[in-house]
Amino acid sequence: MDFLVQKALDGDHRSIARLISLVENESPFASQIMAHLYAYTGKAHIIGVTGSPGAGKSTLLDKLISSFKGMGKKIGVIAVDPTSPFSGGAILGDRLRMQDHALDTDVFIRSMGTRGSLGGLSRAAYEAAMILDACGKDVIFIETVGVGQSEVDIVKIADTVCLLLVPGMGDDVQVMKAGIMEIADIFVINKADRDGADRLAAEVNIMLDLYGKKAWRPPVIKTIAETGEGIDELSKALLDHRQYLSKSDEGKKRFYSRIKMEVEEILKREIAKVVEERWKECCNDELISALCAKRIDPYTVAGRILGDIFSRG
Amino acid sequence: MDFLVQKALDGDHRSIARLISLVENESPFASQIMAHLYAYTGKAHIIGVTGSPGAGKSTLLDKLISSFKGMGKKIGVIAVDPTSPFSGGAILGDRLRMQDHALDTDVFIRSMGTRGSLGGLSRAAYEAAMILDACGKDVIFIETVGVGQSEVDIVKIADTVCLLLVPGMGDDVQVMKAGIMEIADIFVINKADRDGADRLAAEVNIMLDLYGKKAWRPPVIKTIAETGEGIDELSKALLDHRQYLSKSDEGKKRFYSRIKMEVEEILKREIAKVVEERWKECCNDELISALCAKRIDPYTVAGRILGDIFSRG
Repeated sequence: MDFLVQKALDGDHRSIARLISLVENESPFASQIMAHLYAYTGKAHIIGVTGSPGAGKSTLLDKLISSFKGMGKKIGVIAVDPTSPFSGGAILGDRLRMQDHALDTDVFIRSMGTRGSLGGLSRAAYEAAMILDACGKDVIFIETVGVGQSEVDIVKIADTVCLLLVPGMGDDVQVMKAGIMEIADIFVINKADRDGADRLAAEVNIMLDLYGKKAWRPPVIKTIAETGEGIDELSKALLDHRQYLSKSDEGKKRFYSRIKMEVEEILKREIAKVVEERWKECCNDELISALCAKRIDPYTVAGRILGDIFSRG
Repeated sequence: MDFLVQKALDGDHRSIARLISLVENESPFASQIMAHLYAYTGKAHIIGVTGSPGAGKSTLLDKLISSFKGMGKKIGVIAVDPTSPFSGGAILGDRLRMQDHALDTDVFIRSMGTRGSLGGLSRAAYEAAMILDACGKDVIFIETVGVGQSEVDIVKIADTVCLLLVPGMGDDVQVMKAGIMEIADIFVINKADRDGADRLAAEVNIMLDLYGKKAWRPPVIKTIAETGEGIDELSKALLDHRQYLSKSDEGKKRFYSRIKMEVEEILKREIAKVVEERWKECCNDELISALCAKRIDPYTVAGRILGDIFSRG
């Protein structure tokens, strides 16, 4: 195990991949690995890239990877697909485009599906990001097909959140914009050669002026990922935001709240294990029948188990 | 409180709305209310309606409501918008279309945004559905803008999951279909007058034939929600699926696993409260500084708190 961790810290991709798998599969060594790696974290720039299906996230990411590689950065990508209930090495057609970089020793790419349980995904993505950070990646992209909770979760993981919008995606996108206003640090209007790009950019800017009271005013950047247009500007904005975080209280605040969340999440997960165990112990056919027949209700059952956990301890 | 619960059970919409708010806001009475209502649940048909933004969910729902109303059913709608971090009474432009039914005493409509915490949303939707069930609604629709985790969660709540697809939504929809295959009971190809509708329907059918080994073969139904085309067929399919559930083991299995999940969720939530309390108690500046300076790691901190929780009990 020590040897594997050391090789990963030296930047060996196969070792990194194995560490991520161990942690993702909740190996008994997972906590030990993460605890050990923790001292090496805190150097990477973690960038969340999110947006509706079809917004062109993968293509944009492709171009961003090239751009950051040009600056000599070592890059990690975590491609999260919350729509896929299949965990681990799901083959996603969409990811294939990134395969150009897959053979590259400076770019590490990992796909993740949901892990069945709510919260499991953002947890796994967070830990993978921490591993990549510890193992020397300078920039870590977390891409997510996010029109859901995943966007809100990503903000807790990423230093910089980048939201892709596309002109002409209909009503719900308008709704989405309102909801996501709070969490995006950079707005990207992709496929900016489409009709309505300028109007969409203007709308976002108006919203930002209306609701934005933060020291960092999110820029709205038009790109055409296919041709690479706007990528330089976007790369610069990403670096700017990182600069801003390092110089302002905001960066410290995010770091603090991430660490707090981190401890809380570990606590919840560990306790969840205890709860599941105890629940399995007392969840027999008789009890389920009583619940089905409504002779007892779930709240009373839960109350009894809780009493039991804390008295047994 | 007793009076409010009684009025809600009698079908009074304002009382129902207040109960949902109490539970949603985690009132101290929440568990008591839910425990009391539990005996009245189990009669409604809970239908999840999900699909990408712009798939036409609200319009379709509108037509389905009219269709079920025509059968004399009392209807509840929970419109979940995981993209909105604003909780409670968020005004969503999209919902306005359903306002025709809002004045209707047989249709109860409720919007929900995310509640900040992962899991909070599906929990709140579940409890709202239970309340509506107890209070005499025959059919409960849970609509969600789901291209994410929410879809996977909805299956745990709904008896019947209805997935909307639209022709020409790009690559990611293809990916989505693979991920969602497992959880949809009915596939709807909406906007079926668009190019590619037949091809999309054929693709879904092929996938279903390839992967589907279940006793219920999900039908693929073409609709044009705007004109109402296909709605009768869809209504019939929804009734058929309910019939199937009531006659097969599948219905019992879903009910069992829902009850199990219910108890487990309550347990987790209650324990999360304990964790948060204890963590707040010991989370001081000194500890956070030690974490930031990496003199200690989150796993070790969590381990100590856990030891403390179980010894103190």
